[in-house]
Formats: sequence, C-alpha cells, structure tokens
Amino acid sequence: MKIPVIRRILESNEEKAQELQDFFEANGIVVLNLISSPGAGKTTLLEKTLNALRDEFNMAVIEGDIQTTADAERIARCGVQTVQINTEGACHLDSYMIYRAVEKLSTEHLDIIFIENVGNLVCPAEFKVGEDGKVALLSVPEGDDKPEKYPLLFSEAKLLLINKIDLLPYLEFDLEKVEKVVRGLNPSLEIVKLSARTGEGFEEWLSWLRKRVEEKRS
Amino acid sequence: MKIPVIRRILESNEEKAQELQDFFEANGIVVLNLISSPGAGKTTLLEKTLNALRDEFNMAVIEGDIQTTADAERIARCGVQTVQINTEGACHLDSYMIYRAVEKLSTEHLDIIFIENVGNLVCPAEFKVGEDGKVALLSVPEGDDKPEKYPLLFSEAKLLLINKIDLLPYLEFDLEKVEKVVRGLNPSLEIVKLSARTGEGFEEWLSWLRKRVEEKRS
Repeated sequence: MKIPVIRRILESNEEKAQELQDFFEANGIVVLNLISSPGAGKTTLLEKTLNALRDEFNMAVIEGDIQTTADAERIARCGVQTVQINTEGACHLDSYMIYRAVEKLSTEHLDIIFIENVGNLVCPAEFKVGEDGKVALLSVPEGDDKPEKYPLLFSEAKLLLINKIDLLPYLEFDLEKVEKVVRGLNPSLEIVKLSARTGEGFEEWLSWLRKRVEEKRS
Repeated sequence: MKIPVIRRILESNEEKAQELQDFFEANGIVVLNLISSPGAGKTTLLEKTLNALRDEFNMAVIEGDIQTTADAERIARCGVQTVQINTEGACHLDSYMIYRAVEKLSTEHLDIIFIENVGNLVCPAEFKVGEDGKVALLSVPEGDDKPEKYPLLFSEAKLLLINKIDLLPYLEFDLEKVEKVVRGLNPSLEIVKLSARTGEGFEEWLSWLRKRVEEKRS
C-alpha cells in the first residue's frame, strides 16, 4: 500500500521569511529574534537596551505573547515603535505574523528591530522569521541543564545571553559546563554574561549590538 | 502611544476546523485526535485497535510526525488507509494540514479517522482540527505529575487513556492522585486504564469507541 505523504509545510514559512530578510537587508535593518523560557528576562533586557541606545539608533520592537499586551506597554513606555502580536494559543511566532507586524511599522530610518518571541524554549527555535540571528536568553535560576535538554535553540543561536548572573552566588549553576555544552552544539556561538538588573556585563551586549549595526551599514 | 495589536491568528485555524467538523458530521465519521508525549504508546495502541476492530468498522489513520514515515508504515501494515503528515519542524498539526490529508482519503463508508498528533504534550492541545474529541494518552513511566504540569490537554480531552498499567508494580505512579487532579481540571473527563501491550483494560477502550460510532450513526 502506498502511503501519501504531505510535506513542505514549513517551506511556505521559509519563503515568507526570505522575503522579509530581503526587505530588511535592502533597508539596512538589523533584526534580532529573542528566544527564551518565560521569565528569563527578555522584556527587562529590552527596556534597559532601548533606554541605553535611544540616542544612537532608531529601534522598534515586535512583542509576541500568547495573550495580554502587558509587555508591549512596558516597551512602548521606552518611546519606541511597538507592535503587539497576540498569538491566541500559538506557541511561536511565524514569518506571516512578523510580516503583518512589519506592515504596521514605519521602517524608514530604522536601525534595529527586536522581536520578542513567545516565551518557549522549544517551538520558536524551529521557525525562521527573516531575522539576522536568534538571540537565546538563558537565566541562571532556570538551571544549567537547559542547553542539553533543549539543544536546538542553542545550536541555532548567533548569541547566547546568560542573564541574572547576579544570582550566581546563591544558586548552583555551572557556567563552565554551560559554555562547554553550548560550544559543543555550536562552535561559533558568541556568549555574553550579564545581569539586566544590576547592569553587570551589559556594556558587552551593547557593543555586540553596535557591531551588528556597523556590519549592516558597511 | 497607541500600540497596534495583531490577533485572530488562531481564528483562521478554527474556521478551517469548523469546515472539517461539518464535513465529518455530514459523512458520519468519528474523528479522534490522539495526543501524548513521545513514547506514550500511541502507535502501538492504534495497531492493536485497528486489528481488533477491522471487521466491524472502516477506519483510516492520519499520522503526524515531525519527520520520518516509520509510524505510518506500521499503521499501513494493519491494512487501513494511512496518510502521513511530516510537519518538518512544526510542533503540532493544524486544521489546514488535516484538510490536505483528508483530501487524500477516500472517505465514503469511513466510520473512524484516528489522527495521531505529533508527540508533544503542549502545543497540539491548542489546535482544533475538526475532531469529535481529543484523546489524551498518559503512560505510567512518564510520571503522575504530568496533568499538573500540562493541564491544558487534560482540560480539553474527552477521554484519558492511562497506558502501560502493566508497569504499575515497578514504578511509583499514584493513580488516585492522577484521577483526582484530572477530574479537578475536567469533571466530565472519561478515564480508561489499560496496557496496549498486555491487553489489560483494552476491551473498555474498544467499547468506548463502539459507543462513539453508535452515537454518530443515530
């Protein structure tokens, strides 16, 4: 018996992602797709980043949440263009959602778009959305076993931010182990350790962002 | 600042699901959406079910997997119509995928379609696919904490199959606790305890299926 097989479901997502990527490239916009578990600190990181770089760059944020607009409201208070995507159950953002969000932005003169994906370490890692790179956020209280348990995100990411390092003295979290595991998964992964709360390591993250904008302009 | 909000993403999935449901209703087909973690025993359950009921009912299976056609091959050997959906990364089946799969089936005289969803306790629970009901499978080795950790599936399911009960003597699994938790989430949930391997409790599952077909015919 011949079994019919249905495939190419993700292909249409990837075609749309390519269309977005071409648009971002043509307009010189750096697009970063932030992915983490819920509570790893994506929104706080973004607030501090927007406040630190507001005089240097034009930035916008696409906020993905299953429900609520609470995060988008926090971001909009930083004075940047913000679009909220409420997925109403869907566990990740796809390129069609991002396309509809980008249509709402005035993209002229934009330098950076941050996409805050739905809080989920699993599904968002599969879906390209036209980004320059995925930025994985892993926070110390989540535990040092996450890269082994959810390898895809760490294999795919361009940058790993290890957040909440101010809590290292109070928790068992083996930084060296994490670095070894993620480098095994992804030898070219860059790693920045920081605390969005205390500001420790934050300058390194800002420098990384400045480099991305320079690269895009050159 | 006004924040644009993009919603109604799942709505188009639900419209398509409604279209499917109307079609299944008009054609008297019982459609069950099987959801569990990987390895809970969905394919083995289906093989035994198809073999037990092949002389009573016309059945078909839509097999969802991220990759491979191994499960569909096992099912096709039972002599029923089988369609494989390879999601290529997507973490759940949606109603568009099911629509394309149903197009490949000859649906005349069909009594039951089993949909074996992608092995994932989280995302498939959100997506309606036109089914009469979701059947949750929880296997004893997975642990008795799963309904508390992943409540949505257990809230949504019509039937809970607790599988691999032949392993109860060897593992710590508190059946009473599970039943109490799931009934708290979903007072009308039916529960069948079985072992697809040894056959214990299997007749109760078959009776449940026969009742669904009778209801649909009447």
